[in-house]
Amino acid sequence: MTSNPTCDIIHSSMKIAVTGKGGVGKTFLVAILAKLFAEKGKKIFAIDADPDSNLALTLKFPNPSEITPLVKMKKLIEERTGGKIGTLNPYFKLNPKVDDIPDKYFLSHQGINLAVMGSVRGGGAGCTCPENAFLKALLRHLIVEREEVVILDMEAGIEHLGRGTAESVDRLIVVVEPARNSIETAHRIRDLAKAIGIARIEIVGNKIRENRDKKFILDALADFDFLGFIPYNEKVTEADLKNIPFFEHCPEILEEGRRILERLGDPERIALR
Amino acid sequence: MTSNPTCDIIHSSMKIAVTGKGGVGKTFLVAILAKLFAEKGKKIFAIDADPDSNLALTLKFPNPSEITPLVKMKKLIEERTGGKIGTLNPYFKLNPKVDDIPDKYFLSHQGINLAVMGSVRGGGAGCTCPENAFLKALLRHLIVEREEVVILDMEAGIEHLGRGTAESVDRLIVVVEPARNSIETAHRIRDLAKAIGIARIEIVGNKIRENRDKKFILDALADFDFLGFIPYNEKVTEADLKNIPFFEHCPEILEEGRRILERLGDPERIALR
Repeated sequence: MTSNPTCDIIHSSMKIAVTGKGGVGKTFLVAILAKLFAEKGKKIFAIDADPDSNLALTLKFPNPSEITPLVKMKKLIEERTGGKIGTLNPYFKLNPKVDDIPDKYFLSHQGINLAVMGSVRGGGAGCTCPENAFLKALLRHLIVEREEVVILDMEAGIEHLGRGTAESVDRLIVVVEPARNSIETAHRIRDLAKAIGIARIEIVGNKIRENRDKKFILDALADFDFLGFIPYNEKVTEADLKNIPFFEHCPEILEEGRRILERLGDPERIALR
Repeated sequence: MTSNPTCDIIHSSMKIAVTGKGGVGKTFLVAILAKLFAEKGKKIFAIDADPDSNLALTLKFPNPSEITPLVKMKKLIEERTGGKIGTLNPYFKLNPKVDDIPDKYFLSHQGINLAVMGSVRGGGAGCTCPENAFLKALLRHLIVEREEVVILDMEAGIEHLGRGTAESVDRLIVVVEPARNSIETAHRIRDLAKAIGIARIEIVGNKIRENRDKKFILDALADFDFLGFIPYNEKVTEADLKNIPFFEHCPEILEEGRRILERLGDPERIALR
């Protein structure tokens, strides 16, 4: 889309985390962005880090419900961490080797490389296990060390990014809808994000039916930065019920996506801060 | 509502867990049921066990965002479990005393006693900590030992109920909306529920706009039991944006709730299985 070369450079190895309350359309936005980055010819890693969503289904990967999440690959995790899963054995590597995982274990479809992580959240600071150590190391590798574009589809609880990893996230996008609960979550996420060192947070408003909806969100999040608004479109639901890709059934939805992508890579917009 | 005495007996100490994909309306249904049980004069415990939702906000408790989740009550948890939070110390009680917690720490508003749990999910079987031990013990106490009606607003991941507790859940209600993702989640939940010993699972369809939506859900979940369907109602959104209780702004929504409650307590319906 953007022919601005500076914009392309900014895009080229961007690390984007998308979060927000369940059901607001995080996976939908991640799918839009992944599609558009792939369209631009970027190598893109799309990471489903929300056990409550199904990015593979939204991107129409074949047999999405049969994909084994990484967290369930017991043998691999035990081999890499040296820890025995399911025991209380406290000895395992917190920094297992993971740099070969993207090439060996990610799935590829229409130019998008996908990983399904499975549940990674721990209950508390002292709560750890080989599976979490493995997934955290992989997230760290993807965000801190890789040159590719990485987009994370995350739960509203973003704590598992952790310090060190979080600081390398270029943008945290919080998706909201016209509903008070999703606004509350956006505020909570901002507090968490600040605490773990994420510098840049922006809002995308989704399911906008009328001007009142947009106004409600702008008023409720007056001190946030906005990346854009995506209108509610009945054809998105229709595509879903028919099990066809929304970006084919309803290509106009990609238009707002293109504007969001352009804003993500706009150097002047960044300079303004 | 129901004057059927058998139905009242069935209702009287019911333990209900509500789950489903984020955003489908779990909290909305929990609020409806809590309201209706309170209206019937039952003592009711409503438990917000989903860190991604805000039951207090939906029930219009005062200052919902300022409520401290139980998981954050460090001093209390350390005192009860004997464990030090945030350390890797593996020694703490897995069965701390919790039977006084509902009376001392739950909040009360318009006949509903509320607890906000905070995050309780662990990453794996070997993943444990004092906070999780405390919350699990409390859930167990509420579901297995109490005589009151208990309604849980839960994440789609229901693993933290655990064996022994799960078996005492009378009904697991899975809320779905006309969207493929929420159907996938319902299937996944059923597998989890069977694995941990929950006997009875039923579906409530929410956000039904037209007949096509209901048909999609019925077809996609053909081998599930259904408790009812709640129509999409613009006034629910309106109430939310205006920050007024939906059950006052839109009392007709309680009508379908009453039918669901009646079906929950219908002895013949139970005998049918």
